[in-house]
Amino acid sequence: MKLQERHTGSDFQIKNSSDRIMEKIYNLGIIGFGGMAGHHYTQLSKGNTRVKIKGVYDIKPERLEAARERGLIAYNSREELLSDQDIDIVLVATTNDTHAEICIDALKHGKHVLCEKPVTISSDELLKVMEAAKECGKVFTVDQNRRVNKDYVLMRRVIESGKIGTPYVIESRVEGSRGMPEGWRCNRSQGGGMMLDWGVHLIDQILYMTDEKATNVFCKMYSVHYKDVEDNFRLTLTMESGLTAQIEVSTNNFILHPRWYVLGTEGTLQIDDWACNGRIVLPLSKQNEWATEIAPDRSGPSKTMARRDPSTVETIELSAPTDVSDNLDPTYWQLVDAIEGAPLKITPEQTLRTMKIMEAAFESAKTGKAIDVCI
Amino acid sequence: MKLQERHTGSDFQIKNSSDRIMEKIYNLGIIGFGGMAGHHYTQLSKGNTRVKIKGVYDIKPERLEAARERGLIAYNSREELLSDQDIDIVLVATTNDTHAEICIDALKHGKHVLCEKPVTISSDELLKVMEAAKECGKVFTVDQNRRVNKDYVLMRRVIESGKIGTPYVIESRVEGSRGMPEGWRCNRSQGGGMMLDWGVHLIDQILYMTDEKATNVFCKMYSVHYKDVEDNFRLTLTMESGLTAQIEVSTNNFILHPRWYVLGTEGTLQIDDWACNGRIVLPLSKQNEWATEIAPDRSGPSKTMARRDPSTVETIELSAPTDVSDNLDPTYWQLVDAIEGAPLKITPEQTLRTMKIMEAAFESAKTGKAIDVCI
Repeated sequence: MKLQERHTGSDFQIKNSSDRIMEKIYNLGIIGFGGMAGHHYTQLSKGNTRVKIKGVYDIKPERLEAARERGLIAYNSREELLSDQDIDIVLVATTNDTHAEICIDALKHGKHVLCEKPVTISSDELLKVMEAAKECGKVFTVDQNRRVNKDYVLMRRVIESGKIGTPYVIESRVEGSRGMPEGWRCNRSQGGGMMLDWGVHLIDQILYMTDEKATNVFCKMYSVHYKDVEDNFRLTLTMESGLTAQIEVSTNNFILHPRWYVLGTEGTLQIDDWACNGRIVLPLSKQNEWATEIAPDRSGPSKTMARRDPSTVETIELSAPTDVSDNLDPTYWQLVDAIEGAPLKITPEQTLRTMKIMEAAFESAKTGKAIDVCI
Repeated sequence: MKLQERHTGSDFQIKNSSDRIMEKIYNLGIIGFGGMAGHHYTQLSKGNTRVKIKGVYDIKPERLEAARERGLIAYNSREELLSDQDIDIVLVATTNDTHAEICIDALKHGKHVLCEKPVTISSDELLKVMEAAKECGKVFTVDQNRRVNKDYVLMRRVIESGKIGTPYVIESRVEGSRGMPEGWRCNRSQGGGMMLDWGVHLIDQILYMTDEKATNVFCKMYSVHYKDVEDNFRLTLTMESGLTAQIEVSTNNFILHPRWYVLGTEGTLQIDDWACNGRIVLPLSKQNEWATEIAPDRSGPSKTMARRDPSTVETIELSAPTDVSDNLDPTYWQLVDAIEGAPLKITPEQTLRTMKIMEAAFESAKTGKAIDVCI
């Protein structure tokens, strides 16, 4: 596995807010004031020093009212918001099927754009947005906020430490048991389903940690309780080194698998949950002492699967990183830095890779084929 | 999922030995007196009332000596064993690459044959053995002993109970951390590797519980510490109803997954280990009460993955079945019954299906393709 060393470390660090206190404050306009925008509001209200929400537009009157109650301007139309010269950045947090058109509109009004994930519902759409961003000379980025999740950072750091040797399987699972929230998430045409909702994060996390290309995509999708979309999927993503990522998202699991499970040549990593309970288990010696006879143990007669004496392994308990800012600040900081000339960290090209892998996954699920790719 | 109802129950039951005490006793000759044959010796010595070991042939003098120490006849050649008119049944427990030729030889000497798994190392070989059995009019069966493993029977019974609704994913995993025992198991040409060693059991278990045909095979194989064979594999087997079996065998896992994990439409089953520790978890109500706002919990902002209140589920703890004979007796009983005219339960046709799926798995692993099948 070829780790993407250049990203390690600094992306995840909590920055010192006082370093930035005298700098320009950017005004944010929000289009689509639903659940995710409410989360941005809550996070930014905690005191992001570079970005301040000015106002909101939503097609639903009750959401505009909710904005007013929070002391924000409620614009009467999208056009009115986009024409406000004070607005520097637009957050697009509408239903997935409308992202592309709104992003392009915002860029053409001279705004920098932060789009919620999934950036669009097809790579064709995304290419159009990328073209518009280029033409307009504005920054266009995506809220892939789970690149700074503590569980993800911890997993990467364990792999980078070399303790478990070379990883050959990474299992990444997000599981719930409550089905899917009613509404557009259950409709294919609006960009619903678990691949676009959660797959987009879990694929991005894998692609973001390595410079390898993906070579093969195999995916099973299930519509267990929601017929129009996949409410569960299981994706096998193969990278050019042979590293396999097994990515699973479920909404009907009443017993949960661990969040991360990584097989390395020299040991095993498991992170149980978002709180980063977990452990590394390593053999103390590479020598296995086999019994001369096949001893029937509880597995029946097997030498291969005979249990290890627990004294032959070392267990290292893990805990959550304390130097990681597990909120939206890094997303906004990287955007502001890019507006001021630094290289963008969450690039449209990266999200295009993820989008293409999701498209291959849909094709695989539909045809039963494993799709060869070079992404 | 179409369950194979006719097999449920009686296969797994402990039979009353006294019912059989006045019946003919069959003499067994063993060819290949290694680890597995030693296991047969131990099991049969506990008092199988229908089958008694007479003698042994092995190419290694030390194994013949081991047979003599146990009071068995040590034949000087395979021919000598096969020519002994007292021998009714031959157990073939040699290296996998030699099964076919020895089985055919035994059948041609008028013996009934019990072959260790994997029955052969290719379906072509198996077809030749099946032809020989037909020509010679003798019973030919395979020691698929794990059809009576308690964990497997428990898993089937939970599914048959209907408690978890219709199963759509069955995860079956056997994991060790001690690598592979030295010797022929590490050589491709001798039929080594984890697919033929353990895959053969786990695939047979899935096929044996349903009348559905398999439609698709996708498999990743890994040679982590043994270069000539796969010491780990991950197989996705799709059945015609869409049911997916995820079968994994590993020899380098220092943290173990559960033995069984089954997703049903109405609940989840997990069996942790061979000892049948496990549970079913079911929702008490189908109604999910969603928060109106996206509540950031430890998963970050997500309604879909928000945790359930534990009071909304029911947990049923499981334990090992007590009416199941988890040893080799059922294998021998079904063989003796078949010799006496009953339909054979472990048929060559069944093992041919498993063999063809393993061949598709090897092809998939080699080519990166998902292989469409109708098996």
